[in-house]
Amino acid sequence: MYELGVVYRNIQRADASVAEKLAVFGSATVHEAMGRVGLMKTYMRPIYVGAQVSGTAVTVLMQPGDNWMLHVVAEQIKPGDIVVAAITTDNTDGFFGDLLASSFKARGARGLIIDGGCRDVKTLTEMGFPVWSRAISSKGTVKATLGSVNIPVVCAGALVHPGDVIVADDDGVVCVPGAVAEATLHAASKREANEGEKRAKLASGVLGLDMYSMREPLAKAGLRYID
Amino acid sequence: MYELGVVYRNIQRADASVAEKLAVFGSATVHEAMGRVGLMKTYMRPIYVGAQVSGTAVTVLMQPGDNWMLHVVAEQIKPGDIVVAAITTDNTDGFFGDLLASSFKARGARGLIIDGGCRDVKTLTEMGFPVWSRAISSKGTVKATLGSVNIPVVCAGALVHPGDVIVADDDGVVCVPGAVAEATLHAASKREANEGEKRAKLASGVLGLDMYSMREPLAKAGLRYID
Amino acid sequence: MYELGVVYRNIQRADASVAEKLAVFGSATVHEAMGRVGLMKTYMRPIYVGAQVSGTAVTVLMQPGDNWMLHVVAEQIKPGDIVVAAITTDNTDGFFGDLLASSFKARGARGLIIDGGCRDVKTLTEMGFPVWSRAISSKGTVKATLGSVNIPVVCAGALVHPGDVIVADDDGVVCVPGAVAEATLHAASKREANEGEKRAKLASGVLGLDMYSMREPLAKAGLRYID
Amino acid sequence: MYELGVVYRNIQRADASVAEKLAVFGSATVHEAMGRVGLMKTYMRPIYVGAQVSGTAVTVLMQPGDNWMLHVVAEQIKPGDIVVAAITTDNTDGFFGDLLASSFKARGARGLIIDGGCRDVKTLTEMGFPVWSRAISSKGTVKATLGSVNIPVVCAGALVHPGDVIVADDDGVVCVPGAVAEATLHAASKREANEGEKRAKLASGVLGLDMYSMREPLAKAGLRYID
Amino acid sequence: MYELGVVYRNIQRADASVAEKLAVFGSATVHEAMGRVGLMKTYMRPIYVGAQVSGTAVTVLMQPGDNWMLHVVAEQIKPGDIVVAAITTDNTDGFFGDLLASSFKARGARGLIIDGGCRDVKTLTEMGFPVWSRAISSKGTVKATLGSVNIPVVCAGALVHPGDVIVADDDGVVCVPGAVAEATLHAASKREANEGEKRAKLASGVLGLDMYSMREPLAKAGLRYID
Amino acid sequence: MYELGVVYRNIQRADASVAEKLAVFGSATVHEAMGRVGLMKTYMRPIYVGAQVSGTAVTVLMQPGDNWMLHVVAEQIKPGDIVVAAITTDNTDGFFGDLLASSFKARGARGLIIDGGCRDVKTLTEMGFPVWSRAISSKGTVKATLGSVNIPVVCAGALVHPGDVIVADDDGVVCVPGAVAEATLHAASKREANEGEKRAKLASGVLGLDMYSMREPLAKAGLRYID
Repeated sequence: MYELGVVYRNIQRADASVAEKLAVFGSATVHEAMGRVGLMKTYMRPIYVGAQVSGTAVTVLMQPGDNWMLHVVAEQIKPGDIVVAAITTDNTDGFFGDLLASSFKARGARGLIIDGGCRDVKTLTEMGFPVWSRAISSKGTVKATLGSVNIPVVCAGALVHPGDVIVADDDGVVCVPGAVAEATLHAASKREANEGEKRAKLASGVLGLDMYSMREPLAKAGLRYID
Repeated sequence: MYELGVVYRNIQRADASVAEKLAVFGSATVHEAMGRVGLMKTYMRPIYVGAQVSGTAVTVLMQPGDNWMLHVVAEQIKPGDIVVAAITTDNTDGFFGDLLASSFKARGARGLIIDGGCRDVKTLTEMGFPVWSRAISSKGTVKATLGSVNIPVVCAGALVHPGDVIVADDDGVVCVPGAVAEATLHAASKREANEGEKRAKLASGVLGLDMYSMREPLAKAGLRYID
Repeated sequence: MYELGVVYRNIQRADASVAEKLAVFGSATVHEAMGRVGLMKTYMRPIYVGAQVSGTAVTVLMQPGDNWMLHVVAEQIKPGDIVVAAITTDNTDGFFGDLLASSFKARGARGLIIDGGCRDVKTLTEMGFPVWSRAISSKGTVKATLGSVNIPVVCAGALVHPGDVIVADDDGVVCVPGAVAEATLHAASKREANEGEKRAKLASGVLGLDMYSMREPLAKAGLRYID
Repeated sequence: MYELGVVYRNIQRADASVAEKLAVFGSATVHEAMGRVGLMKTYMRPIYVGAQVSGTAVTVLMQPGDNWMLHVVAEQIKPGDIVVAAITTDNTDGFFGDLLASSFKARGARGLIIDGGCRDVKTLTEMGFPVWSRAISSKGTVKATLGSVNIPVVCAGALVHPGDVIVADDDGVVCVPGAVAEATLHAASKREANEGEKRAKLASGVLGLDMYSMREPLAKAGLRYID
Repeated sequence: MYELGVVYRNIQRADASVAEKLAVFGSATVHEAMGRVGLMKTYMRPIYVGAQVSGTAVTVLMQPGDNWMLHVVAEQIKPGDIVVAAITTDNTDGFFGDLLASSFKARGARGLIIDGGCRDVKTLTEMGFPVWSRAISSKGTVKATLGSVNIPVVCAGALVHPGDVIVADDDGVVCVPGAVAEATLHAASKREANEGEKRAKLASGVLGLDMYSMREPLAKAGLRYID
Repeated sequence: MYELGVVYRNIQRADASVAEKLAVFGSATVHEAMGRVGLMKTYMRPIYVGAQVSGTAVTVLMQPGDNWMLHVVAEQIKPGDIVVAAITTDNTDGFFGDLLASSFKARGARGLIIDGGCRDVKTLTEMGFPVWSRAISSKGTVKATLGSVNIPVVCAGALVHPGDVIVADDDGVVCVPGAVAEATLHAASKREANEGEKRAKLASGVLGLDMYSMREPLAKAGLRYID
């Protein structure tokens, strides 16, 4: 259950080196490597194209239209972290802008994942501080009601525990539980190796039908060709 | 109430110099300066990144799938205006394209805000004519039914009177009533000044918790830290 | 009716030269030239800005979360084709990524139109393989259930027969039936010629009200000017 | 512009007898009688089928997730009023439930129109207190931030001034400005009279094509019949 | 391709007796019997609960906000028909109300399927004239622009040819092509027969796992039970 | 992390008597009693009005368009359970109908919560088997790919562990973690007691402003009354 009004100071972060290395594989490969789970909804989009990051999650839960807890979570950020912000209800207000980005960056955050709105996107782009959000909105927020920091949250449909690894790029955002981060890194590496070879074959004109030996199972499933 | 079939030729535009100066602050700061009201819904997005404009509103109300009144409003545009187009119902048709943009630009319009669709976005981008719209659509429209020009309209959830100031950028679109445009300009200037200083502090590692003296009110609200 | 589990090998493609020439006019002009029909819904967006293609449709119908048939359709691609992928229900999973793109490109495909999700968008952009999709998603798919290839499909609200011409650009995606492709090309050419002249007039300050002789019909419809 | 933190005590309500009489015509006829304007978006739905009310608007503007002002507006309700609640941003939280309904009812309110969520719908149905809302939600709200009472608001896309007449039924919600309420009542009465006669004719098999003399204009517009 | 401005008077209706008999099986069984294709999107909802109809389609294509063609299609209705109305773009206006329903009913229509809005739902419910629509809206429409009657249309994502069979109930709307209507009726009958028996078994506590012999394929697919 | 292909047979269910007693308070009161967390998104709606249930959760995760695991979960149902079905991606297909309902009911299930579609709603209503779903759809599903049973799932934005208590009614669906179920029951009882008294006061005309002593904090927050 969500606890409101609490800040957990000590969280168990996934191995920093594993967390950092996952970025290079991107969210699609990591998602496959994990067994196709842990992905946030597709409405989560980067505010600018080309960012590709990974890091350990510090989480924050907020009320709609109220960004007070973003100031609280800032203090809990350690270098290499990515802030994951959930809201208790669907809300597109602009919880986050360039001032908070300056603060997050100074604390060592690699980015923000927020199931709400973001503003000052031009400045954030110039700063190179990547944000994945459900909306872009100029609407400011109040600072009146408590949420929590570093509790497990559901963000854009994905369950995120503090310390989990977040991988985010142009394809989306995936959460890798700390317990399987290393195994996922291995699986992703292996997968990626294979992909290079497959890509070359397919680019040379070999069909997936043959490369993956699909003709027999397709026929077995009843596929008919009609001339 | 909306009047259909009327064109108001003489509208009281907000002070041109105030209207022009608001652009530099951007929609987020202006929205805050006004007290967090007047913002259009977040589905209104610019057709290209980076445009930042402000100007006085000439308004137009149209029926779904019918852009006849855009030709009528063109004649009412004065240099420094921004056209604000509302539709009587949710509709994504492509009411506006490069031909009308040529006309609007020739009349001195600085941009278009339309609660409908826009097309020819590649050409509009090349022309540097900024549009904020709810959709991009190739679908053309008919010219069969009257709407009105320069009546108060609700565009993307915001009330816009002819002559109000519109501020639009990558963060969204805000409408500043003419009567408070100057006060808003002052408030925005003051706000912006403060922001530079705040940004520097936060970038140096000072926490918002301390800079804004939030620790006491947070504790008072019941925030608990758990190690 | 949709037939499931069939692949039509021989389809009647629209004239290749006509299919290729339509691209230059873009989806908006082609849509107008056809009489304002055949447009896909506006949620279909290009994964990167600036692509403008046309070609003959090879179609594929898939089940949600299952991209098996994309491998089947790959074999049916001929140079100059555009793959049009429909799903039996609304679904945003990432059916298509860089591996399949390598294969499609090797077969001569000019692009993909998919009423589902797409992933590896950074790589696809680098490859210059354009995709119009309803979503971007890292979520992979299974290969378990049959669909069909080269049957008529409804994709994003538009009916597409195999061999029809697809025109896609930043404004959207339009389907031109093979039987009217040549007539549409002529109509589009004629339309485009006119547009250049019109654009120049409007840019010089001539109003659409006068250029299109709208003042009389507007007055007849009851438009009143109020000073 | 919205003013935040103010309560207007004295508003000019439309004539009570006119306001009451409009209910019988229903939102569709009233909307037509006004010239097809003033309608709220179609996502506004009644919590139970069959309610049909009209009354004078008292308005309230709230922040997302915060229903404090509903208690403030309660005091401003007079018998025959309908409360119209706007939120500063899209929000589906359950701002209103049976406790507030007891209070509103005791004050003489005829219903609530809220561009947010509502809860306790079973009890509200039993009480016969009609609500039109954008959502049904168990989610409670806080009482922390000011809004305003009896300022003009945009609710579900419609501009509502305090004292305007609201007409709501199974077809939706329409706002009739106080200044035209009486004229609208007359127009609606006239329209309704005609409708009875028309309905009888159509039910007897007479075609609208003939009753409205549409055959000639259709032919003129180019309609072709093909056998 | 859609043809605009044409009315096909002579269409080949599916066998009337087959068309009528399909209703009893309901949309879910018919959809299965057809091979899980032909279903309209789930946003199409009945205006009242409990209607279950089938009949032959007469089709109409309209422009957004313009219901002129509903009067044209009325003349083409024969007893046992269901009108299927498509709009050229997403639109929720109230194209249809009690007057047109009186006319449609007098002509022998069994219902209306409309990818737009409907109004006067209380009266329609009292009349027992069922409508499946994407929205309920008081908003009236104009009569200014041509569409077509009895051309193939895409309605809520489903392709409908004039004369096809429509089956609609609380679960949704399915279109059965005329050519397979009889085969679908047989398949549905057979399916239904089986369902009674299956239902009894399942109600007695037999598991689907055993009744459908799923345990082996599940184990083969790798399902693991953990105590 | 989600594990795919596993069925946990032994789960720790919350106390049966507590689980059963929570129903009477309804989702709104329970949600408040828990501190305003644990609510599913508002798109989850009951297929018929008036059902109000609570029970212990057995969970199932499925792939889009594939209901194989509903047969697997059936075997794990014990009397007093409510099945909570999550899908790995947004999907509205009709995973559940009257046959499965017969089976679930025979096993003692009190209802189904499914983040997908449901069909046969007329029969389910007659059977009195309540379902809360994101859609109603005739579309059937395949049985081809594994999911899991009795793992923690995110359903409509809420985290549900097997054995948690689900409370569902016309206002929505809330999940009460097993560990706090008893405390929540106490809090809800206490809350409900208070509500009766409050309701009576408010119904007698006492204002919430006075009953909750809001006048002072409102004034302190700056609320101004204008005559």
